[in-house]
Amino acid sequence: MSRYVYDFHEGGRDLAGLLGGKGANLAEMTRMGLPVPPGFIVSTEACRAFLATGEEPAGLSAEVSRHLSALEASAGRLLGQADDPLLVSVRSGARFSMPGMMETVLDIGLNDDSVLGLAKVSGSERFAWDSYRRLVQMYGSTVMGVDPALFEEAMTLLKEAREAPDDVHLDAGDLAWLVETYKRLIRDETGRDFPQSPAQQLQQAVLAVFGSWNAERARLYRRREHIPDDLGTAVTVQRMVFGNLGADSGSGVAFTRDPATGRPGLYGDYLANAQGEDVVAGVRNAVPLAELERLDPRSYRRLRDHAQTLERHYRDLCDIEFTIERGTLWMLQTRVGKRTAEAAFAIAAELVEEGLISADEALARVGGDGLARLMFPRFDTGATGAPLTHGIPASPGAAVGAAVFDSAEAVRRAAAGERVVLVREETTPDDLPGMVAAQAVLTGRGGKTSHAAVVARGMGKVCVCGAQDITVHPEARRFTTRDGTVVEEGAVLSVDGSTGEVYAGAVATVPSATVRYLETGEQAGSAVSAVARALEHADHVRRLEVRANADNPEDAARARRFGAQGIGLCRTEHMFLGERRKLVEEMILARTDADRERALAALLPLQRRDFTGILEAMDGLPVTIRLLDPPLHEFLPDRMALAVRIATAEATGGRPDAHDVELLDAVNRMHEENPMLGLRGVRLGLVVPGLVAMQVRAIAEAVVERTRAGGAPRAEIMVPLVGAVEELRLARAEVSRVLAEVGEESGVDVRCPIGTMIELPRAALTAGPIAEEAEFFSFGTNDLTQTTWGFSRDDVEAAFFSAYLDKGVFAASPFETLDRAGVGRLVRLAVAEGRAARPGLETGVCGEHGGDPESIHFFHDAGLDYVSCSPFRVPVARLEAGRAALDGVEAGDTR
Amino acid sequence: MSRYVYDFHEGGRDLAGLLGGKGANLAEMTRMGLPVPPGFIVSTEACRAFLATGEEPAGLSAEVSRHLSALEASAGRLLGQADDPLLVSVRSGARFSMPGMMETVLDIGLNDDSVLGLAKVSGSERFAWDSYRRLVQMYGSTVMGVDPALFEEAMTLLKEAREAPDDVHLDAGDLAWLVETYKRLIRDETGRDFPQSPAQQLQQAVLAVFGSWNAERARLYRRREHIPDDLGTAVTVQRMVFGNLGADSGSGVAFTRDPATGRPGLYGDYLANAQGEDVVAGVRNAVPLAELERLDPRSYRRLRDHAQTLERHYRDLCDIEFTIERGTLWMLQTRVGKRTAEAAFAIAAELVEEGLISADEALARVGGDGLARLMFPRFDTGATGAPLTHGIPASPGAAVGAAVFDSAEAVRRAAAGERVVLVREETTPDDLPGMVAAQAVLTGRGGKTSHAAVVARGMGKVCVCGAQDITVHPEARRFTTRDGTVVEEGAVLSVDGSTGEVYAGAVATVPSATVRYLETGEQAGSAVSAVARALEHADHVRRLEVRANADNPEDAARARRFGAQGIGLCRTEHMFLGERRKLVEEMILARTDADRERALAALLPLQRRDFTGILEAMDGLPVTIRLLDPPLHEFLPDRMALAVRIATAEATGGRPDAHDVELLDAVNRMHEENPMLGLRGVRLGLVVPGLVAMQVRAIAEAVVERTRAGGAPRAEIMVPLVGAVEELRLARAEVSRVLAEVGEESGVDVRCPIGTMIELPRAALTAGPIAEEAEFFSFGTNDLTQTTWGFSRDDVEAAFFSAYLDKGVFAASPFETLDRAGVGRLVRLAVAEGRAARPGLETGVCGEHGGDPESIHFFHDAGLDYVSCSPFRVPVARLEAGRAALDGVEAGDTR
Repeated sequence: MSRYVYDFHEGGRDLAGLLGGKGANLAEMTRMGLPVPPGFIVSTEACRAFLATGEEPAGLSAEVSRHLSALEASAGRLLGQADDPLLVSVRSGARFSMPGMMETVLDIGLNDDSVLGLAKVSGSERFAWDSYRRLVQMYGSTVMGVDPALFEEAMTLLKEAREAPDDVHLDAGDLAWLVETYKRLIRDETGRDFPQSPAQQLQQAVLAVFGSWNAERARLYRRREHIPDDLGTAVTVQRMVFGNLGADSGSGVAFTRDPATGRPGLYGDYLANAQGEDVVAGVRNAVPLAELERLDPRSYRRLRDHAQTLERHYRDLCDIEFTIERGTLWMLQTRVGKRTAEAAFAIAAELVEEGLISADEALARVGGDGLARLMFPRFDTGATGAPLTHGIPASPGAAVGAAVFDSAEAVRRAAAGERVVLVREETTPDDLPGMVAAQAVLTGRGGKTSHAAVVARGMGKVCVCGAQDITVHPEARRFTTRDGTVVEEGAVLSVDGSTGEVYAGAVATVPSATVRYLETGEQAGSAVSAVARALEHADHVRRLEVRANADNPEDAARARRFGAQGIGLCRTEHMFLGERRKLVEEMILARTDADRERALAALLPLQRRDFTGILEAMDGLPVTIRLLDPPLHEFLPDRMALAVRIATAEATGGRPDAHDVELLDAVNRMHEENPMLGLRGVRLGLVVPGLVAMQVRAIAEAVVERTRAGGAPRAEIMVPLVGAVEELRLARAEVSRVLAEVGEESGVDVRCPIGTMIELPRAALTAGPIAEEAEFFSFGTNDLTQTTWGFSRDDVEAAFFSAYLDKGVFAASPFETLDRAGVGRLVRLAVAEGRAARPGLETGVCGEHGGDPESIHFFHDAGLDYVSCSPFRVPVARLEAGRAALDGVEAGDTR
Repeated sequence: MSRYVYDFHEGGRDLAGLLGGKGANLAEMTRMGLPVPPGFIVSTEACRAFLATGEEPAGLSAEVSRHLSALEASAGRLLGQADDPLLVSVRSGARFSMPGMMETVLDIGLNDDSVLGLAKVSGSERFAWDSYRRLVQMYGSTVMGVDPALFEEAMTLLKEAREAPDDVHLDAGDLAWLVETYKRLIRDETGRDFPQSPAQQLQQAVLAVFGSWNAERARLYRRREHIPDDLGTAVTVQRMVFGNLGADSGSGVAFTRDPATGRPGLYGDYLANAQGEDVVAGVRNAVPLAELERLDPRSYRRLRDHAQTLERHYRDLCDIEFTIERGTLWMLQTRVGKRTAEAAFAIAAELVEEGLISADEALARVGGDGLARLMFPRFDTGATGAPLTHGIPASPGAAVGAAVFDSAEAVRRAAAGERVVLVREETTPDDLPGMVAAQAVLTGRGGKTSHAAVVARGMGKVCVCGAQDITVHPEARRFTTRDGTVVEEGAVLSVDGSTGEVYAGAVATVPSATVRYLETGEQAGSAVSAVARALEHADHVRRLEVRANADNPEDAARARRFGAQGIGLCRTEHMFLGERRKLVEEMILARTDADRERALAALLPLQRRDFTGILEAMDGLPVTIRLLDPPLHEFLPDRMALAVRIATAEATGGRPDAHDVELLDAVNRMHEENPMLGLRGVRLGLVVPGLVAMQVRAIAEAVVERTRAGGAPRAEIMVPLVGAVEELRLARAEVSRVLAEVGEESGVDVRCPIGTMIELPRAALTAGPIAEEAEFFSFGTNDLTQTTWGFSRDDVEAAFFSAYLDKGVFAASPFETLDRAGVGRLVRLAVAEGRAARPGLETGVCGEHGGDPESIHFFHDAGLDYVSCSPFRVPVARLEAGRAALDGVEAGDTR
């Protein structure tokens, strides 16, 4: 027969699975000799047995009785004993913290008799009746299923009758009347009486807590947090202690260090003459713990000693709940405490200095998400009012600037020294100059991987996107919110990319000391030096290389300062925009080979200049250049705008612009239903004559130029969107031909690795043959996610991802965190079969996932050689690559 | 040391890999005792050795000499012997026939001396000099690499000088002059002389034939036909015999049966006083073989006997090349002969009757492509002129009708009894009524899997699509071709869906007797009864079930007549068009829950009626109904058309239609960049309240209605586009809820299997967990191909598939024949992991591939339970499913 119940002195923190987090830590403190009110734990195993059958597990009742007897013996009184009742609390406590999700019943043991006894021994009738009132109310709703609103209603009616502003103003008589009213309410609603038997109260309360595991809100919470549904909760039964028995009593919460900054020293709040619930609920204003030192120096010293004991024992910041009952300190809960990112780094570094943990452990306890938070400027806490609107927090940080509604205006104002926020319904590559010029980007449409979001994150620029209740009127140079507020061009906005909130007016910001360190090496403050030490250690232990995605010399240089070991993805499509759009248009519209060749020839020197600059910034490090990827019609004007313009001209009797007509004809011819799956990538290279040759020549000539200038250029050429080895074979032949040509012309060795993106399921599924033609694989996990799931990220995120997250279809967007079961399976397969075909095949990832902490751990585990991410994520990736190398080291749940 | 050379009497037909097809069959005939001019074969192994090193393999020369000596001994004269030269031919002969792709050199052994001897022994100076002229010309271009145009030029100049219309009019002196001219030409071009040594001629000719394996045209041919590049060719060296030595000589080709109809009896052509090349080239008109019986009854009888011997030996139709040299019959080639589809069925059936082959072998020798050809009406051969235009042959058959340019006109004219051809730039679901009404569909855009093509094939309707040189002007009711021809509405067109050609005017057609048989059971003619017997045997041996894709009772009934064992895919989106579009629009535009519920409630009875009719037509057989799949905006009007209409109204000072404005707003809101990867399939079901419930209720109520009417409805419900098991779990819960509801209301058991499409790579990759929620898998190989390859079929086929086929990226469009390496790997994986998770899981395929012969063999091999295809492909699928069950039975290359 199973054993279901454990005394506090039998357990320990390593039994959280069986005893729940709360129970295990109470047992741990008991074993450490700290003053914990005695009690016992009904295990999660009992819960699971109950949930499986709907019946109380056989023998549980007897076990509980046995442990209760021991408790009664140690207390010297019986549960609900009429003259001096032992009271107990019954609390849920699952393996993973689920705050507020499950039930608690306090003051079990009170009944019509023992309430009188309690009044007598406590010397407070009001206290006794209030405790009884709470029990009946909690028990009635939790165990007996009465609608809690009915109790509230009765309470409200009574307060109105007594003209009492709150329940503190009700006296013992009022509360006794309320107990009667509640009991009648229970009888009317359920047909049963509130049980007077303390044993029955206890038994039913335990089962009710078990049952609350499956309450709707708990299920929803678990689905979102991806906590398995079959764990069950433990139940802690503990002797009640009371902090509300007078001025020599009280309750408080404490942290062993400041959880906001990591500064050492006891930190927390204390509320005299109150229960723990009152502190949490904020009924009265709590005072800083220092005050306790004045009020009750003995208890304070004890608390401080216990805190130190706990921190040394847990080797980490702990949070503590305690109660002082008539001068006696009781420890009611502890656990490793939550903390800010800043504190996480500072504490980890300090614990290493104090010799409590190793550098590996310290690294395991900090995280990339936290580091990212430290890299953005922040709004000054408390300086904000109600937001004007809010959207999806797409690229974190805080920015203030004047609203502008097009790229040109953004550039103009920025050139004049003004800070601006670019507001668009959605952005396109044409908005790039404006995005570069702006402090922040705000869009009305699109999700976390919309153009605005991806580009902004790449630039380390603040972005809030998909703010659905704004409507942008660029022609009128304003936007409106759903509640009718109008924001005109030039109005100042404050955009918080970490929360998604947007404020009218300027909110004060604080710049990031971490970025200053990364840019200059200056270590201002203990948190920054802690970050520096964590990064150093991560670089020391990591196996994964970290490269950056960068398309221009400035980004490349910044990435290098931030620690990038090369460029993993240099996109070339951004190089076809702006002033060059005209040439690209000519190339596309060319009616003869000669016209096309002329346009390509004009693009060649411009492309060469691009590559020369990037190779210079990354001199000596690899620069992986991707040949042109997007469909060509992306470089032409919008089809609908052209059609409307022509129709308008025709309707008003004028002649439409001839160039417009020619363009519309071309756009119509090239229009694609699903451009994502159309004529792009290597397909383009195979059907547009001269395109690949021009790009490869530009690369090769840039290599010649840099070599002659004494540099060490390390270009690598990457062919996108390969699905069949034959495509790569054909493209590779063309690339090699042009390299050989330039090599011969120049006498410089311009040979370089030629590889491919793995971004289609078929590429992964035929990775073996493809590896025979590829010197490296770069996993394009954005596109691979799109095709593996059949998701167009431009469309689906806003349309149904929030519903999917709510319904638990996935725990995180697969565009943010790599989907291991689907996309990850393809990655592993391609790595294995690619390496089998070509030992030493270099493999990396250049999708957005390359900068995502959880995904980086997967890439480490999958055996990739490097991750590549946007320059601003490079430090994050370095840190997480280091942490990934330590996977398995005890980290605790501290982030 | 390898052995490279084999005498004819050493080989046999089973050595085609080593000796090439031609050589192996010559050896076979030699062993059978048929009169074959003696010779030997240099093996493909020698070719491979030569190609690998570029050198003549060691020992080859000695081996050739030895075999040549034997040949000389048997002939009683030496190669090139001055007074009576032995002459030989040197011909290529690969394992797989590559007609005209590689080189041949005839008349080897002639030189300045032996030409005189040949003139003497043959009694014809002209014959001797013409033979020498041919040798120098062929040797000069093939072996010595002289541009063949130079020889042609010299010949043309001479003919002009002699005023000779062709070379037959040149005399011996002319030809002797030409030989000198050619030899000088060779010397001028190569710096070397035409070799006078017969042995050197032979050696060099053999190596030149080897080298021709890698000629550009041969490589291209192999890439297209997917013949491996490393097989190499064999070379046949054979004593020359001459059919051009007078009236008692001649050459011919013969078939052992009529290859057009399969009728028994010798069939072929004969040309007196001619070489084989002359018959093939059609220099003079050949006469039917019957004429030979009159001219040379002894040779004719011998030929007839040899033909019978060969047919009994090969147990199949053979084709034969023969030459009669001064009354002596020589067999020069044989192989299993090509034949029409009709003949293939007829011959296979007759050979079974004659006891030569088994029913299994007969089935292995016919094919689904042939059966499909027999199912379409045909244009009367020879009745056609030059086509007006041509496009992609998308749905075979022949149709004649008046050109119409919109669906309404098609319906109107068809209702009035007129036959029409619907001509559109491209079709949309709104054209369906017009497509139903039309005899054929012609489009200017789109490939074999465009909407027009897919729907037309499903209907068995003729379709030519992507006729790129026409421009359709629907508003002007005409189309123009690139050469300026204008075709007005009402003009009669003849559309050949088998060739892609479109003719002006009415070309006579012949209806399909095979379809009449399938519809009525009537077996008119031997080919039709042969088809009937093949289908019966296929049904007997096949393991795969065959179901049909059908969305309405008429298609379902036809599919059943054609032998379908149920419906594998009943799409429901076609049920939302036409008059119902208004209701769908209301559902989409609904501003309140009540509005939406009202629209859904109005759709319910209409949907129920659809399902009742289909379940009735398929009573007792499974009907797999797919819940709504396409994005909802597909049911709204075109975005650009709306925008232009509104802009036009505004530009002319009018007020745009309010409904237009509302619609444009909705269309804009719902617009998707890549609708294929957007809000569709199960995603729609999870976010549009009430949609799934309405459809499931309609299905369940239809089941109730049919059950009460005494039927045996077998509905199965299929959830589309599942990528994660959680999606299916949620959808399944909703489906089950509604089924239970209707079951309770009606008292009828409406429970039915609930399954899913596997049409996303992720679904295949997580098939194990998905199978736990699915009672069946139906592979949607169209979408699975799109996502696995990243191909939008609407876009990519026309854009670059023909280039990809040319470049050998794939041998067939992956939308026509399943891509085994990519998509097929996912199918196998999903079947294996799905069945492991749920033993007995039913698996089928409902993509277009379900009707493709080659793909059906894969599905059989992958262990699927059924294929489902359009009604017209059902007989094809039955046949191929039978053939697949026999894979491994010797079939020959007869289709």
